[in-house]
Amino acid sequence: MDMSELQFPSLKGVRLASVPANIKNWLRDDLLLVEISEGASVSATFTQNSFCAAPVLVAKEHIAQGDIRALLVNAGNANAATGTRGLSDAKACCAAVAAAMGIRAEQVLPFSTGVIGEHLPLQRLLDAIPPAAEALAGNGWGRAAEAIMTTDTRPKIAKRTLKIRGEEIAVVGIAKGSGMIQPNMATMLAYVATDATVAQPLLDEMVRDAVSASFNRVSVDGDTSTNDACVLIASGAVGESIQTRSDESYSALMRAITEVHVELAQEVVKDGEGATKFVTVQVDGADNSEEALKVAFEVGNSPLVKTALYASDPNWGRLVMAIGNALPNDLDTGKVNIFLDRVQVVEGGGRAADYREELGEQVFSQSEFTVRIELGRGNASEHIWTCDFSREYVTINAEYRT
Amino acid sequence: MDMSELQFPSLKGVRLASVPANIKNWLRDDLLLVEISEGASVSATFTQNSFCAAPVLVAKEHIAQGDIRALLVNAGNANAATGTRGLSDAKACCAAVAAAMGIRAEQVLPFSTGVIGEHLPLQRLLDAIPPAAEALAGNGWGRAAEAIMTTDTRPKIAKRTLKIRGEEIAVVGIAKGSGMIQPNMATMLAYVATDATVAQPLLDEMVRDAVSASFNRVSVDGDTSTNDACVLIASGAVGESIQTRSDESYSALMRAITEVHVELAQEVVKDGEGATKFVTVQVDGADNSEEALKVAFEVGNSPLVKTALYASDPNWGRLVMAIGNALPNDLDTGKVNIFLDRVQVVEGGGRAADYREELGEQVFSQSEFTVRIELGRGNASEHIWTCDFSREYVTINAEYRT
Repeated sequence: MDMSELQFPSLKGVRLASVPANIKNWLRDDLLLVEISEGASVSATFTQNSFCAAPVLVAKEHIAQGDIRALLVNAGNANAATGTRGLSDAKACCAAVAAAMGIRAEQVLPFSTGVIGEHLPLQRLLDAIPPAAEALAGNGWGRAAEAIMTTDTRPKIAKRTLKIRGEEIAVVGIAKGSGMIQPNMATMLAYVATDATVAQPLLDEMVRDAVSASFNRVSVDGDTSTNDACVLIASGAVGESIQTRSDESYSALMRAITEVHVELAQEVVKDGEGATKFVTVQVDGADNSEEALKVAFEVGNSPLVKTALYASDPNWGRLVMAIGNALPNDLDTGKVNIFLDRVQVVEGGGRAADYREELGEQVFSQSEFTVRIELGRGNASEHIWTCDFSREYVTINAEYRT
Repeated sequence: MDMSELQFPSLKGVRLASVPANIKNWLRDDLLLVEISEGASVSATFTQNSFCAAPVLVAKEHIAQGDIRALLVNAGNANAATGTRGLSDAKACCAAVAAAMGIRAEQVLPFSTGVIGEHLPLQRLLDAIPPAAEALAGNGWGRAAEAIMTTDTRPKIAKRTLKIRGEEIAVVGIAKGSGMIQPNMATMLAYVATDATVAQPLLDEMVRDAVSASFNRVSVDGDTSTNDACVLIASGAVGESIQTRSDESYSALMRAITEVHVELAQEVVKDGEGATKFVTVQVDGADNSEEALKVAFEVGNSPLVKTALYASDPNWGRLVMAIGNALPNDLDTGKVNIFLDRVQVVEGGGRAADYREELGEQVFSQSEFTVRIELGRGNASEHIWTCDFSREYVTINAEYRT
């Protein structure tokens, strides 16, 4: 995709500004302000972690009141496990945004990502907010994707356009996060916006469905961080309001929104700390969707499978071990087949007759491939995306704070 | 402890022999035969993995019939995911033991540990069984502990003695396994024997309780391998039969048996692949025991916590992240305290006022320490043992088959 087009997408009803607030000792933008036009619908999903960060608590409180007009995102400090001072810091930031933009503090959603357990450098944030409000512009998506990065090695941005009743609609999203491999500070954040008009209750369903099909399918060790959040904005600048799933425009818009979410989620996995492989784990023939996902995550989260991926070693014994753990009691292992891309490695629960080690090694030596598991139990299928587990991962996470 | 005493414990009613069967291309004992005297009680727990190995299926079938007289254990090949041939191989081994010892094949329990998905070198096992039966001796525990090793760096053996009604009773155990960190082939195996006399139904309860207090409390990523097994033998050579928990001898014997199990389980963790730290995760103030274990395992299994342990980095943000994930909905984080040995690092959900980084680093730089978590919810306490996650772990597991 043409990066210049990605950097300057045209999305009516949303303006952005990225500024340096010196939250850490670095020379870069680390504060993002997003202005949302009046009358927009805004929906979000948040981390389930009970140690959720102060900004998450404040954002949940504010979004419940509706009529959101601004987002404020800082990188470098998660404002998590910071007690009542953390809460008042987050609220002070919202008040500063409100003052600079002529709105109410409750119309601002705050987000933070970075180290847990340290207080925000509040004054530096407060000082940076008015210049950010001055700098708001429609073409700020590319810089915004960079401003919210922490250990990410590259910005993550995705875009789709579609026509609804002859009118051009854009869907643009940005995300940050080093994927499953640093759930406590990577703190996945994603912001997706469209200029379409969508009724609030429908948008609430759409963000849930889109996240379920994207960020909830990356291998995150079952962990959700203290700060994870995904926001979906429908600015309402274009077209008539889409009210329900039966609206004729719904499907096309939902498809575009889902594609943007999936692209961002895959980018998060590909940029996983130390990751050298991007692997789809596909499970077919499950009794139901929940069971298929359970098997896929058990395989995709196993450190033993992940180190085998890293080594380009088609160690299928680790795959059957993980499958057997996911379904401990009633799996008929004699019905299980496993394919590495098109190479069948396991047939009826044991080594496939025609399988040769070189064939598996060829698949595993690629940077992207699919592990497909047939359970032989029913008709449900699911898939997730994962990456490998490298020496670099340990190095990065053992040395992060030093 | 005096190793010579450990190598030659006196346990009446059990004889052992270790021989080289050349199961892999190595020069060492890799086959263990254990003879159990007539009238003994034998109980066992097995892996819950549905891809459980052929010998596990055969052992379960045989132990259900009672009257077990022999164990056969091979290292180097797990005989797992080997289909019907794997089953007939395991049964052929039992038949060979039966022929050599003058018992029935159903009185033999087979065990295997090693690589998954390859067939046993059956003839080499069959050839090695008769000389093993010739070599049976009471003082074979030390060699036995070595014969069952795979990636273990040292043998694991534990012993207790006690007096019951004036008679000397011994409890001896051996185990193998590189802990949580290679659940697919380390395939933890443990064999504990006493010469006390214990009724079969009571022994069945005792092995469950002892495993629950020991091997089920080491951090194993939630994984159980295809071959995990723990066997408890009461040879019945000494004393009157202990029939129930209310028997006056029960408590002392159970304590000794549990201590042997715990010592072996801790040895497995300490010998974990690449492990440099041995850490107890203690959870106090939980609503109930299940909840306490859930929090302890979430902390002890987290790759982020484990890499911080490796780095001697008291990164308490990762601890609160893991606690918050274990109890996603109703935890009052303001009641959570965390101690690193005696150093309080978290107080009321945030950084403790007196905490200084150097204090935490002092604790984390030790090779053994305790992370204690107070949840402030109730009176239940639990603990588990875990180790760190090192670069060496990735190297070992990425290169295991090469």
